[in-house]
Amino acid sequence: MKRIYIEDLNKHFNEEVEICAFVDNIRNLQWVQFVILRDKTGKVQLTIEKSEESNSALVEMINNLSLESTVKVVGKVLENEKVKLNGMEIIPTKIEVTSKSLPELPLNIKDKNAAEIDTRLDYRFLDLRNEYNANIFKVQSEMVRLMREYLYSLDFTEIHTPKLIAAASESGSEVFEVKYFDRLAYLAQSPQFYKQMAMASGFERIFEVGPVFRAENSNTNRHTTEFTGFDLEFSYINSVEDVMCLEEEMLTYMLKGLNEKYGELVKNTFGSEIIVPTAKFPRIKLADLYKELEDRYGYVIDDAAKVDLTTEAEKLSYKYSMEVYNSEFLFVTDFPKDKRAFYHMRKDGIPQGYDLIWRGVEITTGAQREHRYEPLLEQALEKGLQKDVEFYLEFFKYGCPPHGGFGLGVDRITMLLLNLPSLKEAMFIFRGPNRLNP
Amino acid sequence: MKRIYIEDLNKHFNEEVEICAFVDNIRNLQWVQFVILRDKTGKVQLTIEKSEESNSALVEMINNLSLESTVKVVGKVLENEKVKLNGMEIIPTKIEVTSKSLPELPLNIKDKNAAEIDTRLDYRFLDLRNEYNANIFKVQSEMVRLMREYLYSLDFTEIHTPKLIAAASESGSEVFEVKYFDRLAYLAQSPQFYKQMAMASGFERIFEVGPVFRAENSNTNRHTTEFTGFDLEFSYINSVEDVMCLEEEMLTYMLKGLNEKYGELVKNTFGSEIIVPTAKFPRIKLADLYKELEDRYGYVIDDAAKVDLTTEAEKLSYKYSMEVYNSEFLFVTDFPKDKRAFYHMRKDGIPQGYDLIWRGVEITTGAQREHRYEPLLEQALEKGLQKDVEFYLEFFKYGCPPHGGFGLGVDRITMLLLNLPSLKEAMFIFRGPNRLNP
Repeated sequence: MKRIYIEDLNKHFNEEVEICAFVDNIRNLQWVQFVILRDKTGKVQLTIEKSEESNSALVEMINNLSLESTVKVVGKVLENEKVKLNGMEIIPTKIEVTSKSLPELPLNIKDKNAAEIDTRLDYRFLDLRNEYNANIFKVQSEMVRLMREYLYSLDFTEIHTPKLIAAASESGSEVFEVKYFDRLAYLAQSPQFYKQMAMASGFERIFEVGPVFRAENSNTNRHTTEFTGFDLEFSYINSVEDVMCLEEEMLTYMLKGLNEKYGELVKNTFGSEIIVPTAKFPRIKLADLYKELEDRYGYVIDDAAKVDLTTEAEKLSYKYSMEVYNSEFLFVTDFPKDKRAFYHMRKDGIPQGYDLIWRGVEITTGAQREHRYEPLLEQALEKGLQKDVEFYLEFFKYGCPPHGGFGLGVDRITMLLLNLPSLKEAMFIFRGPNRLNP
Repeated sequence: MKRIYIEDLNKHFNEEVEICAFVDNIRNLQWVQFVILRDKTGKVQLTIEKSEESNSALVEMINNLSLESTVKVVGKVLENEKVKLNGMEIIPTKIEVTSKSLPELPLNIKDKNAAEIDTRLDYRFLDLRNEYNANIFKVQSEMVRLMREYLYSLDFTEIHTPKLIAAASESGSEVFEVKYFDRLAYLAQSPQFYKQMAMASGFERIFEVGPVFRAENSNTNRHTTEFTGFDLEFSYINSVEDVMCLEEEMLTYMLKGLNEKYGELVKNTFGSEIIVPTAKFPRIKLADLYKELEDRYGYVIDDAAKVDLTTEAEKLSYKYSMEVYNSEFLFVTDFPKDKRAFYHMRKDGIPQGYDLIWRGVEITTGAQREHRYEPLLEQALEKGLQKDVEFYLEFFKYGCPPHGGFGLGVDRITMLLLNLPSLKEAMFIFRGPNRLNP
């Protein structure tokens, strides 16, 4: 007999079906037993009348059944409007216990707020049984699927670049060291150099979804030592504007598809609305943004601090972009070169890159890259980089198309979309300086 | 003006177009210059008549143009059956050099066999400009896309599990050590434990595509220290047969889609035929296979060696499965428990797992897993595992659905599909004990 998902039971009234599920709840009354079962699609009630003689074995089994065990049930699906849960019940004829849970759980999985986040992460395998948590990953999987789908439609190739690298890529300080036979290797802090290598190789359009490692000893809600990066790079662009256009189109496509599939679920589970952008995202220069924030909201900071976006400025920029453009997104451009990577192309001394702010948080840094060997070398030297980027500079000696790209943190956009309080919630398994388990 | 791919030029005869490409070749004759351009879709000829006075600047530019530079060209597309290359040419009106190559390349990119594989890997960014190599990754990207597509259609969720782990997972010897702040971490040798955690969490159907690390100090064509794993796990199976069915269906779906999109390309570039399976893959027990190999091909080995598949037996099994079943694939089951991981479920002492052999090479180990705490603990202890798998054993204390799964190496199936002589060819960037660069 083919197993039926609980959400599909309403297509099988008066039929005998097989369902497989966790035991979510048991109410053992004088005359009847109600067992609530839970699979990944929903919950349903089993009803066992104790007076029926043929039920005696089932009744005995349920008397000894612990919550969170798993069962395989054969029974008849009946429409019953008196049953609050979906207006249906199953009258079982056979219950097989496929795994037994210990009687006491170390975590209350019915109320995800009953325990501190650290306890929840200790028992993440139970924590994720909570519907709220499980839904996070359904949504995340679909977000990534949609972004990929968009890129495939534009003839992008997915590549897999090495995470073990010979030299600390962009900055030596935040990189993990690996004992690599008789030498040291490092864990890649981003696929940046390899994405660009693909451009030098003539791949033209590539993306990668993979882990990114940062040896930052910070214990905040926004930091993690390992996360999932969504990175892309493409060739023959005319300017950084092409990069911004691709990003806004990809995100709009993703949000549209996500809203169609999970808009209701996101609203019901997370109280969060998926807003599908209806126009291009506004663009503003960093200096102009600070001027707006001062004029509008009296946000005054030292000129010295205006070389980058402060956390407070990010937050206020959300207010600004909503008020003026009714946009949750805002591209901020024209950062000073001191604050941008050496590989960002410059025009009149201005890096041709941007930060994208969504709901008051930076989600992306993107740029047109410097694809010409001489200026790239000059910019690397200016930043004091030499030996470590030597292999990278080679990529640009034998012709390389003009190109640009950006990277997104999958966990971060999940957090923002669903209004989660912390990255820890948005990751299947969180990693931090004090957290390597489970 | 919108850039046109070279493969689409035949839709634009007598129009002015823009193309962006590498300079693949130049023939500078007395009266005319022929410049061959190459983008990711193909090659096309520019024709510049020297006698035309308006061409003098172009002629001068091409006199100084080095091969492998990149250009942006505006010109008119003309049908011309005298031109061997696609029967067309472009008469350029404007050529902009977007990047310059040094005049001498360290690698002959026209003939990928002109250099040893190690030299090619040193200059991988150039090596991949060779059409043969570039096609490998077009095909690989599509393979992965199709496998994901199949799984999405069955309601699988993609997850991203941590690569930094607290304890060496399955065996301590082949694991990389990472300096993790003031302690040690390890690089995951497989997502096995976390895939199964997702089952304990009620996710039911998950997959992951991500890097897998193996600290094997072996320098062969089949070994690498980092590769891309395609792993899945799913719940409420009835037996290992369900796992085998899913795998054969997924691979058949992939090969069918791949053949439709790239069958011609694979034949032309790699001389390899994509065979789409038309029936279920044959299954055979390990002992029966050895008997067949002896009876049919006189392959005699010590009984002591028959506890696992030898490389020679794998190769012969291809001959066997083709002869008897006309199948490139063969499932081999009923390995002895000594040779299987502790987490494989056993029935009457026999591990409920399999190896899948494709074209004479093992591509997968799959199994029904032991999902019940007590037998799992017992099997772990039997293998001398305890402390390192303690966190994992916890997953099974509070109910866990029956489940199974398997893993594939993306690079390995690419190698087999395209008849490549080495894994080094099948990876965007290869990693081995002596190779961390580029």
